[in-house]
Amino acid sequence: VTRPLITLTTDFGEESYYLGALRGVLLSFCPEATLVDITHHVPPHGILEGAFVLAQACPRFPAGTVHLAVVDPGVGGARRPLLLRSGGHWYVGPDNGLFSPFLDGAPALYRIHDDPTAGATFHGRDVFAPAAARLARGEAPESLGTAVADPVRLSWPRPARRGGEIRGEVLLVDRFGNLVTTIRADDLPAQARTTVTVGSRRVEGLRRTYADAAPGELIALVGSSGFLEVAVVQGHAARTLGVARGAPVVVDAA
Amino acid sequence: VTRPLITLTTDFGEESYYLGALRGVLLSFCPEATLVDITHHVPPHGILEGAFVLAQACPRFPAGTVHLAVVDPGVGGARRPLLLRSGGHWYVGPDNGLFSPFLDGAPALYRIHDDPTAGATFHGRDVFAPAAARLARGEAPESLGTAVADPVRLSWPRPARRGGEIRGEVLLVDRFGNLVTTIRADDLPAQARTTVTVGSRRVEGLRRTYADAAPGELIALVGSSGFLEVAVVQGHAARTLGVARGAPVVVDAA
Amino acid sequence: VTRPLITLTTDFGEESYYLGALRGVLLSFCPEATLVDITHHVPPHGILEGAFVLAQACPRFPAGTVHLAVVDPGVGGARRPLLLRSGGHWYVGPDNGLFSPFLDGAPALYRIHDDPTAGATFHGRDVFAPAAARLARGEAPESLGTAVADPVRLSWPRPARRGGEIRGEVLLVDRFGNLVTTIRADDLPAQARTTVTVGSRRVEGLRRTYADAAPGELIALVGSSGFLEVAVVQGHAARTLGVARGAPVVVDAA
Repeated sequence: VTRPLITLTTDFGEESYYLGALRGVLLSFCPEATLVDITHHVPPHGILEGAFVLAQACPRFPAGTVHLAVVDPGVGGARRPLLLRSGGHWYVGPDNGLFSPFLDGAPALYRIHDDPTAGATFHGRDVFAPAAARLARGEAPESLGTAVADPVRLSWPRPARRGGEIRGEVLLVDRFGNLVTTIRADDLPAQARTTVTVGSRRVEGLRRTYADAAPGELIALVGSSGFLEVAVVQGHAARTLGVARGAPVVVDAA
Repeated sequence: VTRPLITLTTDFGEESYYLGALRGVLLSFCPEATLVDITHHVPPHGILEGAFVLAQACPRFPAGTVHLAVVDPGVGGARRPLLLRSGGHWYVGPDNGLFSPFLDGAPALYRIHDDPTAGATFHGRDVFAPAAARLARGEAPESLGTAVADPVRLSWPRPARRGGEIRGEVLLVDRFGNLVTTIRADDLPAQARTTVTVGSRRVEGLRRTYADAAPGELIALVGSSGFLEVAVVQGHAARTLGVARGAPVVVDAA
Repeated sequence: VTRPLITLTTDFGEESYYLGALRGVLLSFCPEATLVDITHHVPPHGILEGAFVLAQACPRFPAGTVHLAVVDPGVGGARRPLLLRSGGHWYVGPDNGLFSPFLDGAPALYRIHDDPTAGATFHGRDVFAPAAARLARGEAPESLGTAVADPVRLSWPRPARRGGEIRGEVLLVDRFGNLVTTIRADDLPAQARTTVTVGSRRVEGLRRTYADAAPGELIALVGSSGFLEVAVVQGHAARTLGVARGAPVVVDAA
């Protein structure tokens, strides 16, 4: 990279001083860094949702980017502070499964050294931000931590199959009310016509895009994440169907 | 400009991975770019509201800035992906009226070339971000698209007049509960004393600023956008009056 | 600093054009500036809450940073537009107590010169952003304002003491539902075992961190701000206790 790039992904929200303090620490350790937000609205303690967002966004950045991610229900406890290199990118954050999408292919893993001056409740500011910034300014990972193995892996909620039926759930509701499900495009039957059931409604077939149906119509499609999505065209599927994160989604192939 | 500057305006909200992916693409195509947010809270599919925000914010940036704007209910359909130069600034986004404020004075318009690898549901990431970043890094618009004419123009909701009466509506409610209306300062009678009616309340006269009335008082004034505004000093007019976006606003001159 | 750094703290929220316009002005006056958000979700007109956030975040930034802060219920009225240097940092915003945390040690204070072209309702855009950007690009404070004294000081709500009892209140609820109180760590008795009462619930003792108790447990601890905090581990204390900002908090030492 031409200049140090650090992305930020957290469940902090934006109301409090947490992000301001964290950004200040990053820029104090690495004043030349460019900070870029992925999101700070991961559901509180939502490790799975955080991992999904990281998987979708991080690979879009240039190689060499440092991705700082803090969704950290175990802060101050036994979970390890981690630094890892995978696919040409760096990741810094808690060892709790958040980085599962990047653990294939034997990435280099380091447990960040303990800092006796760090507080016990805000490792984003006191542990992860200093490590990310020092990495961004060119320090070697070996000077920041000790090589380790066996990172915590999150088991992605694989859809269950029974005959021609695939059962998953709603992973997230976006701002448009679209229901992004845990069912991947390649979980779907290749040739068959599908029926998707969510809440009390059934949707026949898959569309290519939202504009392929009339406003107000309930449709299913493979969204930009590569996962099955249910949407109301120019409407709000979550409100129309009365469903939320975690609602069951069933696909039948005929 | 001394460095490439790209602003971002969308209706994506900040919960999902959409902005993270889009920012990653921008920085992969143009690693030197500085990204600056205008807002990501345009109401979903709110082309008129998006156009208003762009009109207020974009001209404040330095000449040469690239403004990426995505409020795109017709994504994947027939609407054209657009690139335009107006008033020394660049604009990139869907041809659906979003750029209406910048269409006077014969701007240069280009339809962005199709990219067969782009998905059908997220042109912000797959079409507009690459075009904006390539423009920001100095590529000629002729290499990115084909010159076109006749962009979609949004008709701004002009207030209706009957005698001394002007009828408009609430365009947006800001975080302070202030009601920004569709009535411009120069729609108002120059000399006459005005009465503004919203909900069941009447406000006599116009103030210069919020501090010119006591806390709790309902006032009307020309706000920082140049549009008529109704406010409760240090209060929340929308809650006090029980009105929302779209509520009728009537001005009488006496 | 190696490059001009400007932080932004406001009560604007992110829905409207306010931040976009303000950022445009900053970059027009100082195109090399790096803009960093602290927060834009200070409660509307919440000077005390704004001062708290600034106190927590600003000192984390590198020396030389310009901190632009706009929580400005008196905009357009008699309150002075201020520029001050304290602890090696610059602060720009209204003279209404917002900068109280930085007024010890005789900081240099300047009243920003009036600009006859500035509007009366949005000094963030028209007065403070130009001053902050000109400071960031190296102009002397003497060219931007007139030296003044006697800034407005906010009286921090000191907890009341009676015998072994300390009475404070909830200062803010963060996104995790944690209740940050107005009681500082050094207000607490050094040796004694404490009981904290909030709503109808009592919490015995102080924990070191969230991970020191089981999920669902109600705990008290000194949080990352150095203030007493009440939390439900991996839960949401504000909802569990049914309390909000301003709720009384009582500490008893035994």
